[in-house]
Amino acid sequence: MALLVLKFGGTSVADIDKIRHAALHIKREVEAGHKVAVVVSAMAGTTDQLVGWTKEASPSPDRKEYDAIVSTGEQVTAGLLAIVLNDMAIDSRSWLGWQLPIKTNSSHGSARITNVETAALNEFFKTGSAAIIAGFQGVSDNNRVATLGRGGSDTSAVAIAAALKARRCDIYTDVDGVYTTDPRIVAKAQKLSRISYEEMLEMASLGAKVLQTRSVELAMVHGVRLQVRSSFDDPEADQGDGNRRPGTLVCDEEEIVEQQVVSGIAYSKDEAKVTLTRVADRPGIAAAIFGPLAQADINVDMIVQNVSDDGRHADITFTVPVNDLGDALKVLRSCEDEITYEAINGTSDVVKVSVIGIGMRSHAGVAAKMFQVLAEKGINILAITTSEIKVSILIDAAYAELAIRTLHTAYGLDEV
Amino acid sequence: MALLVLKFGGTSVADIDKIRHAALHIKREVEAGHKVAVVVSAMAGTTDQLVGWTKEASPSPDRKEYDAIVSTGEQVTAGLLAIVLNDMAIDSRSWLGWQLPIKTNSSHGSARITNVETAALNEFFKTGSAAIIAGFQGVSDNNRVATLGRGGSDTSAVAIAAALKARRCDIYTDVDGVYTTDPRIVAKAQKLSRISYEEMLEMASLGAKVLQTRSVELAMVHGVRLQVRSSFDDPEADQGDGNRRPGTLVCDEEEIVEQQVVSGIAYSKDEAKVTLTRVADRPGIAAAIFGPLAQADINVDMIVQNVSDDGRHADITFTVPVNDLGDALKVLRSCEDEITYEAINGTSDVVKVSVIGIGMRSHAGVAAKMFQVLAEKGINILAITTSEIKVSILIDAAYAELAIRTLHTAYGLDEV
Repeated sequence: MALLVLKFGGTSVADIDKIRHAALHIKREVEAGHKVAVVVSAMAGTTDQLVGWTKEASPSPDRKEYDAIVSTGEQVTAGLLAIVLNDMAIDSRSWLGWQLPIKTNSSHGSARITNVETAALNEFFKTGSAAIIAGFQGVSDNNRVATLGRGGSDTSAVAIAAALKARRCDIYTDVDGVYTTDPRIVAKAQKLSRISYEEMLEMASLGAKVLQTRSVELAMVHGVRLQVRSSFDDPEADQGDGNRRPGTLVCDEEEIVEQQVVSGIAYSKDEAKVTLTRVADRPGIAAAIFGPLAQADINVDMIVQNVSDDGRHADITFTVPVNDLGDALKVLRSCEDEITYEAINGTSDVVKVSVIGIGMRSHAGVAAKMFQVLAEKGINILAITTSEIKVSILIDAAYAELAIRTLHTAYGLDEV
Repeated sequence: MALLVLKFGGTSVADIDKIRHAALHIKREVEAGHKVAVVVSAMAGTTDQLVGWTKEASPSPDRKEYDAIVSTGEQVTAGLLAIVLNDMAIDSRSWLGWQLPIKTNSSHGSARITNVETAALNEFFKTGSAAIIAGFQGVSDNNRVATLGRGGSDTSAVAIAAALKARRCDIYTDVDGVYTTDPRIVAKAQKLSRISYEEMLEMASLGAKVLQTRSVELAMVHGVRLQVRSSFDDPEADQGDGNRRPGTLVCDEEEIVEQQVVSGIAYSKDEAKVTLTRVADRPGIAAAIFGPLAQADINVDMIVQNVSDDGRHADITFTVPVNDLGDALKVLRSCEDEITYEAINGTSDVVKVSVIGIGMRSHAGVAAKMFQVLAEKGINILAITTSEIKVSILIDAAYAELAIRTLHTAYGLDEV
């Protein structure tokens, strides 16, 4: 017997039939002798409707009231799932954030969990089987409902798994695991049976939207083993603890026996490129450019500087979030007197492609291979950044699919 | 400055525009210097959707889970109204049942309020103007959400008004007051400016569905003055404390200066008539008939017994709720051996018409006039019951409109 946390996302509980299907996954675990804490999202579409009402009520709705409204979606799902489980003769009840309580700070709309009180759950598990907990919510110091921000139910599940010291936290969603890259781009993309927290964090932050980044961080800190799997699987399917379990296990790298050098290729279309040409190259010029952008709360990522032939000018290229491109150009134009440049250009027609793998720590040559295979395909690299387990490049958007497919093959990911 | 409770029903908050209109009523009271506690229902249609989901999940949903689900409707409205009010620069916040708390007993689905804690509200009113409270809900002893049953928001409002010792509890709804009878039947029906609790109770229980019966009982016990008025009125309209206020004031009879003998004519189509012919007239026969019906939880209302010529048989006629007619006939047929009757007939083609007026206590002849004017129109009376302030008769449904119009004229209600 073990204690498991199961989390079902919005598409997995979108209607009563899907809730009933989710209940069969829970039933399987209960019948295997486990106690389960289940964390649920709102039925797909519900949160959008609730958010829509708050926006119709006010362009900038009071955040505490926003939280009181938007948290009802999870409340409804939790009750419905408990009803269905009790009808299946599985001893079950629902809990809202304030009932456990799940305590949060007071950042309404994007609150952080500060404590999960487990006394009521532990008492329940003495006789009960399935505790259903409304995700995405807690109660702040002032006794008001607080929500964790979009996708926060993943974080709820991990926090509860950590507090209960659960054996595993299973994230049931509408995909059947984490892939080596986006299967819509590379047909040969392979499902990973295991991936380390660090790699998953890079994947998540680069647009592989399987798990909320914060939930992965929290899982890493508390050592919560996360299993991503499809809720639409046959609930009767084998659920062993070996390597052949369904879905993808996100875990400590020590649990991963056969570590690949590169685990996956991620990409992001949320970047825009800004180029300033023939900037006067003098001390303090970087501060003159990037200071005003920082003040405008615009996040600069990749930066490239090329000094010109005369040695007194430079071309400077950098990336900003695509939504901030217009603001970035406005800020820089307003500083033209201080910066003195010949031209300024902005484009959103770029893509950031990243090669991710914890094996890079011990294997050299990953970046070199990347540059080589892309050069062979005639793909021009506009900017580069690296971290310990990641190499990212910026390229023209037109070459994105070609680059991803080329890298996927080059690092041996077509067959894992 | 006074403290008022305002309650808005589901049709009065059916969408954001209507919520904004309701907010203008609140604004008017706040600008007149009042503190207001506002009780809201769910947006029209929301509760039906939530109840529908619980029924889809199970034919007999767990009632505690049902309450957790169905209570979300009022939670959403409370938040939205607070958002709109804050945008109008009216200092406002929402409270859920568990936050005050409003304590209830543990009869989930039809709970009774046991206590309304007012400390948080009184603290809020030191600086704030409009406290928005989710109606229809409280928290039971075991810390679970409990709902008060359909229409329970009226009861929430009255309980809160009693606890806060509010000057008045204004029930904003989709009709503009209480009428002498149904205006759809009698075009000359007059809006009453005042009506006593006792009369309102008789009206409410007889199908004038303006107020939930329990809320009127509670108002009477605690002396809460209830004003029924339309939320669709111009919010700028005069809101004096004189007799010319909009809507109808439900209050103690001592507040009603010019008391009519008869205040209104109510009717109910929810009755069915059962007749047993040639029942052996012997001691214990009433128990033989009505005992089994009581055991089957069927409520018998009017009873008429006619002894036959031979003195040894009787015809017995009585009414039951129309939804129980089938069960009542089944019960009586199963008891045929004990009761011994010649025939049994049931029909739902009857209407109960009631003349209601607190003035009957001091004026004789109300019933006599009723029988006389109906006889003049050739309307046959099938059964009669009376109380201190009411005379009810049962007639063929075909004569209902004629009877109501005739009585409305006869008691001088065509012009008040």
